[in-house]
Amino acid sequence: MKTLVIISHPDIKTSTTQAFLRDAQKNLKQVTWHPLDVLYSNYQIQIEKEQQLLTQFDRIIFQFPMYWYSSPALLKKWEDDVLTRNFVYLSEQASLKGKELGIVTSLGMPLREYQRGGVENFSISEMLIPYQALAKRAGMKFLKPFVISQFAYMTNQKRAKCLIDYQNYITNPKYDHFANYEKWMIQQLNEFKQTLPDDKQLIFQTVIDQIQNNADQLAELNWEVNMMKKKEGY
Amino acid sequence: MKTLVIISHPDIKTSTTQAFLRDAQKNLKQVTWHPLDVLYSNYQIQIEKEQQLLTQFDRIIFQFPMYWYSSPALLKKWEDDVLTRNFVYLSEQASLKGKELGIVTSLGMPLREYQRGGVENFSISEMLIPYQALAKRAGMKFLKPFVISQFAYMTNQKRAKCLIDYQNYITNPKYDHFANYEKWMIQQLNEFKQTLPDDKQLIFQTVIDQIQNNADQLAELNWEVNMMKKKEGY
Repeated sequence: MKTLVIISHPDIKTSTTQAFLRDAQKNLKQVTWHPLDVLYSNYQIQIEKEQQLLTQFDRIIFQFPMYWYSSPALLKKWEDDVLTRNFVYLSEQASLKGKELGIVTSLGMPLREYQRGGVENFSISEMLIPYQALAKRAGMKFLKPFVISQFAYMTNQKRAKCLIDYQNYITNPKYDHFANYEKWMIQQLNEFKQTLPDDKQLIFQTVIDQIQNNADQLAELNWEVNMMKKKEGY
Repeated sequence: MKTLVIISHPDIKTSTTQAFLRDAQKNLKQVTWHPLDVLYSNYQIQIEKEQQLLTQFDRIIFQFPMYWYSSPALLKKWEDDVLTRNFVYLSEQASLKGKELGIVTSLGMPLREYQRGGVENFSISEMLIPYQALAKRAGMKFLKPFVISQFAYMTNQKRAKCLIDYQNYITNPKYDHFANYEKWMIQQLNEFKQTLPDDKQLIFQTVIDQIQNNADQLAELNWEVNMMKKKEGY
Protein backbone atom coordinates (compact mmCIF):
# COMPACT_ATOMS: atom_id res chain seq x y z
CA MET A 1 0.00 0.00 0.00
CA LYS A 2 1.34 3.45 -0.96
CA THR A 3 0.44 6.59 1.00
CA LEU A 4 0.65 10.25 0.03
CA VAL A 5 0.68 12.72 2.92
CA ILE A 6 -0.38 16.20 1.78
CA ILE A 7 0.59 18.77 4.41
CA SER A 8 -1.07 22.16 4.70
CA HIS A 9 0.63 24.45 7.19
CA PRO A 10 1.40 28.13 6.59
CA ASP A 11 4.77 27.82 8.34
CA ILE A 12 5.81 24.17 8.55
CA LYS A 13 9.35 24.95 9.68
CA THR A 14 8.22 26.43 13.00
CA SER A 15 5.70 23.67 13.80
CA THR A 16 6.91 21.13 16.38
CA THR A 17 3.94 18.86 15.62
CA GLN A 18 4.76 18.76 11.91
CA ALA A 19 8.47 18.21 12.62
CA PHE A 20 7.50 15.29 14.86
CA LEU A 21 5.25 13.76 12.19
CA ARG A 22 7.86 14.28 9.48
CA ASP A 23 10.43 12.36 11.52
CA ALA A 24 7.86 9.66 12.29
CA GLN A 25 7.44 8.78 8.61
CA LYS A 26 11.00 9.43 7.42
CA ASN A 27 12.04 5.78 7.20
CA LEU A 28 8.75 4.42 5.92
CA LYS A 29 9.43 3.48 2.30
CA GLN A 30 5.80 3.35 1.21
CA VAL A 31 5.04 6.94 2.38
CA THR A 32 5.54 10.09 0.30
CA TRP A 33 5.73 13.47 2.05
CA HIS A 34 4.10 16.30 0.09
CA PRO A 35 4.13 19.74 1.80
CA LEU A 36 2.03 22.32 -0.05
CA ASP A 37 3.85 25.42 1.18
CA VAL A 38 6.87 24.68 -1.03
CA LEU A 39 4.58 24.12 -3.99
CA TYR A 40 2.78 27.40 -3.64
CA SER A 41 5.57 29.65 -2.43
CA ASN A 42 7.46 28.90 -5.65
CA TYR A 43 4.30 29.23 -7.75
CA GLN A 44 5.09 25.81 -9.09
CA ILE A 45 1.65 24.31 -8.81
CA GLN A 46 1.20 22.15 -11.88
CA ILE A 47 -2.30 20.81 -11.91
CA GLU A 48 -1.74 17.84 -14.18
CA LYS A 49 1.40 16.82 -12.35
CA GLU A 50 -0.48 16.91 -9.04
CA GLN A 51 -3.31 14.87 -10.50
CA GLN A 52 -0.84 12.37 -11.92
CA LEU A 53 0.78 12.09 -8.47
CA LEU A 54 -2.56 11.34 -6.78
CA THR A 55 -3.33 8.44 -9.09
CA GLN A 56 -0.18 6.62 -7.91
CA PHE A 57 -1.30 6.20 -4.28
CA ASP A 58 -3.81 4.03 -2.45
CA ARG A 59 -4.20 6.17 0.67
CA ILE A 60 -4.27 9.96 0.51
CA ILE A 61 -3.86 11.91 3.75
CA PHE A 62 -4.75 15.55 4.32
CA GLN A 63 -2.59 16.69 7.24
CA PHE A 64 -3.07 20.07 8.90
CA PRO A 65 -3.53 22.00 12.13
CA MET A 66 -7.20 22.93 12.62
CA TYR A 67 -7.69 26.60 11.73
CA TRP A 68 -11.22 27.90 12.18
CA TYR A 69 -12.68 24.43 12.03
CA SER A 70 -11.03 23.51 8.74
CA SER A 71 -7.60 23.30 7.11
CA PRO A 72 -5.44 26.39 6.56
CA ALA A 73 -6.33 28.11 3.26
CA LEU A 74 -3.47 26.41 1.42
CA LEU A 75 -5.14 22.99 1.23
CA LYS A 76 -8.40 24.56 0.05
CA LYS A 77 -6.46 26.35 -2.68
CA TRP A 78 -4.93 23.03 -3.68
CA GLU A 79 -8.40 21.39 -3.70
CA ASP A 80 -9.85 24.22 -5.79
CA ASP A 81 -6.94 24.05 -8.25
CA VAL A 82 -6.18 20.33 -8.53
CA LEU A 83 -9.48 18.58 -7.89
CA THR A 84 -11.21 19.58 -11.09
CA ARG A 85 -14.65 18.13 -11.60
CA ASN A 86 -13.39 16.35 -14.67
CA PHE A 87 -10.60 14.66 -12.74
CA VAL A 88 -12.77 13.70 -9.77
CA TYR A 89 -16.07 12.57 -11.23
CA LEU A 90 -17.04 13.83 -14.66
CA SER A 91 -14.69 11.80 -16.81
CA GLU A 92 -15.05 8.05 -17.31
CA GLN A 93 -11.99 7.19 -15.26
CA ALA A 94 -13.05 8.87 -11.94
CA SER A 95 -9.40 8.98 -11.00
CA LEU A 96 -9.73 8.76 -7.21
CA LYS A 97 -12.34 6.01 -7.05
CA GLY A 98 -11.56 3.20 -4.62
CA LYS A 99 -8.75 5.11 -2.91
CA GLU A 100 -8.81 6.08 0.76
CA LEU A 101 -8.95 9.60 2.20
CA GLY A 102 -7.56 10.09 5.69
CA ILE A 103 -7.33 13.23 7.82
CA VAL A 104 -4.54 13.95 10.30
CA THR A 105 -5.39 17.07 12.24
CA SER A 106 -3.91 18.73 15.31
CA LEU A 107 -5.92 20.75 17.82
CA GLY A 108 -4.99 23.51 20.22
CA MET A 109 -7.92 22.65 22.49
CA PRO A 110 -8.48 19.42 24.45
CA LEU A 111 -10.67 16.95 22.57
CA ARG A 112 -13.38 17.13 25.27
CA GLU A 113 -14.22 20.70 24.14
CA TYR A 114 -15.32 19.38 20.74
CA GLN A 115 -18.86 18.41 21.70
CA ARG A 116 -22.17 20.10 22.54
CA GLY A 117 -21.66 22.38 25.50
CA GLY A 118 -17.87 22.34 25.09
CA VAL A 119 -16.00 25.49 24.11
CA GLU A 120 -16.01 24.47 20.44
CA ASN A 121 -19.55 23.03 20.60
CA PHE A 122 -19.17 20.84 17.50
CA SER A 123 -17.47 17.47 17.03
CA ILE A 124 -14.47 16.83 14.81
CA SER A 125 -16.72 14.57 12.68
CA GLU A 126 -19.06 17.48 12.08
CA MET A 127 -16.27 19.91 11.22
CA LEU A 128 -14.76 17.49 8.75
CA ILE A 129 -17.99 16.89 6.82
CA PRO A 130 -16.72 18.86 3.78
CA TYR A 131 -13.89 16.30 3.44
CA GLN A 132 -16.23 13.37 3.98
CA ALA A 133 -18.51 14.81 1.30
CA LEU A 134 -15.51 15.15 -1.03
CA ALA A 135 -14.56 11.50 -0.41
CA LYS A 136 -18.15 10.46 -1.10
CA ARG A 137 -18.28 12.42 -4.37
CA ALA A 138 -14.94 10.99 -5.51
CA GLY A 139 -15.90 7.41 -4.63
CA MET A 140 -13.18 7.27 -1.97
CA LYS A 141 -13.36 5.54 1.39
CA PHE A 142 -13.27 8.12 4.19
CA LEU A 143 -11.06 6.93 7.04
CA LYS A 144 -11.71 7.68 10.69
CA PRO A 145 -9.65 10.84 11.30
CA PHE A 146 -6.41 10.78 13.25
CA VAL A 147 -6.63 13.60 15.80
CA ILE A 148 -3.66 14.97 17.74
CA SER A 149 -4.86 17.08 20.63
CA GLN A 150 -2.54 19.53 22.40
CA PHE A 151 0.74 18.02 21.22
CA ALA A 152 2.73 20.65 23.13
CA TYR A 153 1.48 19.32 26.48
CA MET A 154 2.07 15.62 25.73
CA THR A 155 4.44 13.60 27.92
CA ASN A 156 7.24 11.71 26.17
CA GLN A 157 5.38 8.46 26.72
CA LYS A 158 2.25 9.85 25.08
CA ARG A 159 4.34 11.12 22.18
CA ALA A 160 5.85 7.67 21.67
CA LYS A 161 2.33 6.19 21.57
CA CYS A 162 1.26 8.96 19.19
CA LEU A 163 4.21 8.16 16.90
CA ILE A 164 3.34 4.47 16.66
CA ASP A 165 -0.36 5.19 16.16
CA TYR A 166 0.49 7.69 13.43
CA GLN A 167 2.74 5.22 11.62
CA ASN A 168 -0.05 2.68 11.90
CA TYR A 169 -2.56 5.19 10.48
CA ILE A 170 -0.50 6.03 7.42
CA THR A 171 0.87 2.56 6.59
CA ASN A 172 -1.44 -0.17 7.91
CA PRO A 173 -3.98 -1.20 5.25
CA LYS A 174 -6.41 -2.23 8.01
CA TYR A 175 -5.28 0.22 10.66
CA ASP A 176 -8.57 0.32 12.50
CA HIS A 177 -8.92 -3.29 13.68
CA PHE A 178 -7.28 -4.32 16.91
CA ALA A 179 -6.02 -7.65 15.54
CA ASN A 180 -4.53 -5.91 12.53
CA TYR A 181 -2.90 -3.26 14.67
CA GLU A 182 -1.15 -6.02 16.61
CA LYS A 183 -0.12 -7.89 13.46
CA TRP A 184 1.24 -4.64 12.04
CA MET A 185 3.14 -3.90 15.27
CA ILE A 186 4.77 -7.35 15.33
CA GLN A 187 5.83 -6.80 11.73
CA GLN A 188 7.33 -3.42 12.66
CA LEU A 189 9.14 -4.98 15.62
CA ASN A 190 10.56 -7.69 13.37
CA GLU A 191 11.89 -5.05 10.99
CA PHE A 192 13.39 -3.17 13.93
CA LYS A 193 15.00 -6.42 15.17
CA GLN A 194 17.02 -6.70 11.94
CA THR A 195 18.78 -3.44 12.80
CA LEU A 196 20.08 -4.83 16.14
CA PRO A 197 23.35 -6.73 16.70
CA ASP A 198 22.98 -10.54 16.75
CA ASP A 199 23.08 -10.99 20.53
CA LYS A 200 20.37 -8.37 21.08
CA GLN A 201 18.21 -9.90 18.36
CA LEU A 202 17.71 -13.04 20.44
CA ILE A 203 16.48 -11.11 23.47
CA PHE A 204 14.24 -8.97 21.27
CA GLN A 205 12.78 -12.10 19.65
CA THR A 206 11.65 -13.29 23.09
CA VAL A 207 9.71 -10.03 23.52
CA ILE A 208 8.08 -10.43 20.11
CA ASP A 209 7.21 -14.07 20.88
CA GLN A 210 5.56 -12.99 24.11
CA ILE A 211 3.41 -10.40 22.32
CA GLN A 212 2.53 -12.97 19.66
CA ASN A 213 1.64 -15.46 22.37
CA ASN A 214 -0.62 -12.94 24.11
CA ALA A 215 -2.28 -12.12 20.80
CA ASP A 216 -3.00 -15.80 20.13
CA GLN A 217 -4.49 -16.31 23.57
CA LEU A 218 -6.64 -13.22 23.15
CA ALA A 219 -7.93 -14.45 19.79
CA GLU A 220 -8.79 -17.81 21.35
CA LEU A 221 -10.67 -16.17 24.23
CA ASN A 222 -12.57 -13.94 21.82
CA TRP A 223 -13.62 -16.98 19.87
CA GLU A 224 -14.85 -18.72 23.01
CA VAL A 225 -16.82 -15.68 24.17
CA ASN A 226 -18.47 -15.47 20.76
CA MET A 227 -19.44 -19.11 20.93
CA MET A 228 -21.00 -18.62 24.38
CA LYS A 229 -22.92 -15.57 23.16
CA LYS A 230 -24.32 -17.58 20.29
CA LYS A 231 -25.53 -20.32 22.64
CA GLU A 232 -27.12 -17.79 24.97
CA GLY A 233 -28.89 -16.30 21.98
CA TYR A 234 -27.50 -12.76 22.37
CA MET B 1 -28.67 48.16 10.64
CA LYS B 2 -25.43 48.09 8.64
CA THR B 3 -24.36 45.07 6.58
CA LEU B 4 -20.96 44.07 5.23
CA VAL B 5 -21.00 41.59 2.34
CA ILE B 6 -17.66 39.80 2.01
CA ILE B 7 -17.42 38.12 -1.38
CA SER B 8 -15.10 35.23 -2.11
CA HIS B 9 -14.97 34.27 -5.77
CA PRO B 10 -11.78 33.52 -7.71
CA ASP B 11 -13.09 35.35 -10.78
CA ILE B 12 -15.96 37.65 -9.82
CA LYS B 13 -16.06 39.41 -13.18
CA THR B 14 -17.13 36.30 -15.07
CA SER B 15 -19.78 35.23 -12.55
CA THR B 16 -23.36 36.02 -13.60
CA THR B 17 -24.65 35.17 -10.11
CA GLN B 18 -22.26 37.61 -8.44
CA ALA B 19 -23.06 40.32 -11.03
CA PHE B 20 -26.76 39.81 -10.28
CA LEU B 21 -26.21 40.07 -6.53
CA ARG B 22 -23.96 43.11 -6.92
CA ASP B 23 -26.70 44.92 -8.86
CA ALA B 24 -29.31 43.83 -6.31
CA GLN B 25 -27.54 45.67 -3.48
CA LYS B 26 -26.19 48.64 -5.46
CA ASN B 27 -28.76 51.16 -4.25
CA LEU B 28 -29.04 49.92 -0.68
CA LYS B 29 -27.34 52.59 1.40
CA GLN B 30 -26.82 50.44 4.49
CA VAL B 31 -24.91 47.73 2.58
CA THR B 32 -21.14 47.71 1.92
CA TRP B 33 -19.74 45.49 -0.83
CA HIS B 34 -16.38 43.96 0.00
CA PRO B 35 -14.91 41.62 -2.66
CA LEU B 36 -11.79 39.79 -1.48
CA ASP B 37 -10.22 39.18 -4.89
CA VAL B 38 -9.27 42.86 -5.24
CA LEU B 39 -7.79 42.83 -1.75
CA TYR B 40 -5.58 39.83 -2.35
CA SER B 41 -4.61 40.35 -5.97
CA ASN B 42 -3.01 43.66 -4.97
CA TYR B 43 -1.46 42.13 -1.84
CA GLN B 44 -3.10 44.92 0.05
CA ILE B 45 -4.54 42.88 2.87
CA GLN B 46 -4.18 44.98 5.98
CA ILE B 47 -5.24 42.94 8.95
CA GLU B 48 -5.96 45.80 11.32
CA LYS B 49 -7.87 47.72 8.68
CA GLU B 50 -10.01 44.66 7.98
CA GLN B 51 -10.66 44.14 11.68
CA GLN B 52 -11.56 47.81 12.06
CA LEU B 53 -13.99 47.47 9.16
CA LEU B 54 -15.74 44.48 10.73
CA THR B 55 -16.43 46.30 13.98
CA GLN B 56 -18.50 48.90 12.11
CA PHE B 57 -21.22 46.50 10.96
CA ASP B 58 -24.12 44.69 12.60
CA ARG B 59 -24.54 41.92 10.04
CA ILE B 60 -21.60 40.26 8.32
CA ILE B 61 -22.26 38.14 5.25
CA PHE B 62 -19.90 35.57 3.72
CA GLN B 63 -20.93 35.27 0.07
CA PHE B 64 -19.47 32.60 -2.21
CA PRO B 65 -20.15 29.82 -4.68
CA MET B 66 -19.86 26.42 -3.02
CA TYR B 67 -16.51 24.85 -3.98
CA TRP B 68 -15.89 21.39 -2.55
CA TYR B 69 -18.45 21.92 0.20
CA SER B 70 -16.94 25.17 1.45
CA SER B 71 -15.95 28.63 0.24
CA PRO B 72 -13.22 29.16 -2.36
CA ALA B 73 -9.78 29.31 -0.68
CA LEU B 74 -9.79 33.12 -0.70
CA LEU B 75 -12.27 33.47 2.18
CA LYS B 76 -10.39 30.88 4.23
CA LYS B 77 -7.19 32.88 3.66
CA TRP B 78 -9.01 35.99 4.85
CA GLU B 79 -10.31 34.11 7.92
CA ASP B 80 -6.82 32.78 8.73
CA ASP B 81 -5.29 36.26 8.31
CA VAL B 82 -7.88 38.60 9.78
CA LEU B 83 -9.71 36.58 12.42
CA THR B 84 -6.88 36.38 14.92
CA ARG B 85 -7.72 34.69 18.19
CA ASN B 86 -7.01 37.92 19.98
CA PHE B 87 -9.50 39.83 17.86
CA VAL B 88 -12.22 37.18 18.03
CA TYR B 89 -12.19 35.90 21.60
CA LEU B 90 -8.98 36.27 23.59
CA SER B 91 -9.07 39.99 24.28
CA GLU B 92 -11.58 41.64 26.60
CA GLN B 93 -13.49 43.34 23.83
CA ALA B 94 -14.44 40.18 21.81
CA SER B 95 -14.90 42.42 18.82
CA LEU B 96 -17.55 40.44 16.95
CA LYS B 97 -19.78 39.60 19.91
CA GLY B 98 -23.47 40.27 19.35
CA LYS B 99 -23.12 40.70 15.60
CA GLU B 100 -24.79 38.44 13.05
CA LEU B 101 -23.09 36.09 10.61
CA GLY B 102 -24.99 35.22 7.44
CA ILE B 103 -24.01 32.97 4.53
CA VAL B 104 -25.04 33.54 0.92
CA THR B 105 -23.98 30.57 -1.16
CA SER B 106 -24.72 29.46 -4.70
CA LEU B 107 -24.89 25.82 -5.81
CA GLY B 108 -24.38 24.13 -9.15
CA MET B 109 -26.58 21.22 -8.12
CA PRO B 110 -30.31 21.28 -7.31
CA LEU B 111 -30.98 21.64 -3.58
CA ARG B 112 -32.66 18.20 -3.43
CA GLU B 113 -29.26 16.53 -3.97
CA TYR B 114 -28.03 17.94 -0.65
CA GLN B 115 -29.46 15.25 1.59
CA ARG B 116 -28.80 11.60 2.46
CA GLY B 117 -29.04 9.54 -0.68
CA GLY B 118 -28.71 12.60 -2.91
CA VAL B 119 -25.66 13.08 -5.13
CA GLU B 120 -24.01 15.32 -2.50
CA ASN B 121 -25.28 13.21 0.44
CA PHE B 122 -24.88 15.98 3.04
CA SER B 123 -27.08 18.97 3.83
CA ILE B 124 -26.05 22.60 3.46
CA SER B 125 -26.40 22.93 7.25
CA GLU B 126 -23.84 20.17 7.71
CA MET B 127 -21.39 21.60 5.20
CA LEU B 128 -21.57 25.03 6.82
CA ILE B 129 -20.81 23.79 10.33
CA PRO B 130 -17.31 25.34 10.31
CA TYR B 131 -18.97 28.77 9.88
CA GLN B 132 -21.57 28.05 12.53
CA ALA B 133 -18.77 27.01 14.89
CA LEU B 134 -16.93 30.23 14.08
CA ALA B 135 -20.05 32.27 14.88
CA LYS B 136 -20.46 30.37 18.13
CA ARG B 137 -16.85 30.98 19.15
CA ALA B 138 -17.10 34.67 18.31
CA GLY B 139 -20.38 35.12 20.17
CA MET B 140 -22.20 35.95 16.92
CA LYS B 141 -25.71 34.96 15.93
CA PHE B 142 -25.59 32.52 13.02
CA LEU B 143 -28.33 33.33 10.49
CA LYS B 144 -30.18 30.74 8.46
CA PRO B 145 -28.14 30.58 5.21
CA PHE B 146 -29.41 32.10 1.99
CA VAL B 147 -28.96 29.46 -0.71
CA ILE B 148 -29.15 30.13 -4.45
CA SER B 149 -29.47 26.90 -6.34
CA GLN B 150 -28.74 26.70 -10.07
CA PHE B 151 -29.04 30.40 -10.83
CA ALA B 152 -28.28 29.80 -14.52
CA TYR B 153 -31.51 27.83 -14.97
CA MET B 154 -33.79 30.29 -13.12
CA THR B 155 -36.70 31.90 -14.97
CA ASN B 156 -36.91 35.70 -14.87
CA GLN B 157 -39.77 35.48 -12.41
CA LYS B 158 -37.70 33.30 -10.08
CA ARG B 159 -34.80 35.71 -10.41
CA ALA B 160 -37.02 38.63 -9.42
CA LYS B 161 -38.14 36.70 -6.33
CA CYS B 162 -34.51 35.82 -5.59
CA LEU B 163 -33.55 39.50 -5.85
CA ILE B 164 -36.18 40.61 -3.34
CA ASP B 165 -35.39 37.75 -0.95
CA TYR B 166 -31.70 38.59 -1.16
CA GLN B 167 -32.31 42.27 -0.41
CA ASN B 168 -34.47 41.17 2.50
CA TYR B 169 -31.72 38.85 3.75
CA ILE B 170 -29.02 41.50 3.76
CA THR B 171 -31.06 44.48 5.01
CA ASN B 172 -34.03 43.34 7.08
CA PRO B 173 -33.12 43.16 10.79
CA LYS B 174 -35.77 40.46 11.30
CA TYR B 175 -35.64 38.94 7.83
CA ASP B 176 -36.88 35.54 8.86
CA HIS B 177 -40.38 36.35 10.15
CA PHE B 178 -43.24 36.53 7.70
CA ALA B 179 -44.82 39.63 9.28
CA ASN B 180 -41.48 41.41 9.20
CA TYR B 181 -40.84 40.42 5.61
CA GLU B 182 -44.16 42.06 4.66
CA LYS B 183 -43.45 45.17 6.70
CA TRP B 184 -40.05 45.42 5.08
CA MET B 185 -41.54 44.98 1.61
CA ILE B 186 -44.12 47.74 2.15
CA GLN B 187 -41.32 50.01 3.29
CA GLN B 188 -39.33 49.17 0.13
CA LEU B 189 -42.40 49.85 -2.04
CA ASN B 190 -42.90 53.21 -0.35
CA GLU B 191 -39.31 54.15 -1.11
CA PHE B 192 -39.77 53.05 -4.70
CA LYS B 193 -42.97 55.13 -4.93
CA GLN B 194 -40.98 58.31 -4.23
CA THR B 195 -39.05 57.76 -7.46
CA LEU B 196 -42.23 57.78 -9.59
CA PRO B 197 -43.92 60.85 -11.16
CA ASP B 198 -46.83 62.27 -9.10
CA ASP B 199 -49.67 60.76 -11.15
CA LYS B 200 -48.14 57.27 -10.95
CA GLN B 201 -47.58 57.62 -7.22
CA LEU B 202 -51.32 57.68 -6.58
CA ILE B 203 -51.90 54.43 -8.46
CA PHE B 204 -48.93 52.83 -6.75
CA GLN B 205 -50.26 53.92 -3.35
CA THR B 206 -53.45 51.95 -4.04
CA VAL B 207 -51.36 48.83 -4.58
CA ILE B 208 -49.49 49.40 -1.33
CA ASP B 209 -52.74 50.02 0.53
CA GLN B 210 -54.14 46.76 -0.78
CA ILE B 211 -51.08 44.82 0.43
CA GLN B 212 -51.29 46.58 3.80
CA ASN B 213 -54.98 45.77 4.00
CA ASN B 214 -54.31 42.09 3.26
CA ALA B 215 -51.55 42.03 5.87
CA ASP B 216 -53.90 43.48 8.50
CA GLN B 217 -56.62 40.96 7.74
CA LEU B 218 -54.06 38.14 7.89
CA ALA B 219 -52.82 39.33 11.28
CA GLU B 220 -56.40 39.45 12.56
CA LEU B 221 -57.15 35.92 11.32
CA ASN B 222 -53.95 34.63 12.89
CA TRP B 223 -54.99 36.15 16.19
CA GLU B 224 -58.40 34.52 16.02
CA VAL B 225 -56.93 31.09 15.17
CA ASN B 226 -54.58 31.40 18.12
CA MET B 227 -57.48 32.22 20.44
CA MET B 228 -59.41 29.17 19.21
CA LYS B 229 -56.37 26.93 19.69
CA LYS B 230 -56.03 28.14 23.26
CA LYS B 231 -59.67 27.34 24.00
CA GLU B 232 -59.36 23.89 22.47
CA GLY B 233 -56.33 23.29 24.65
CA TYR B 234 -53.88 22.54 21.84
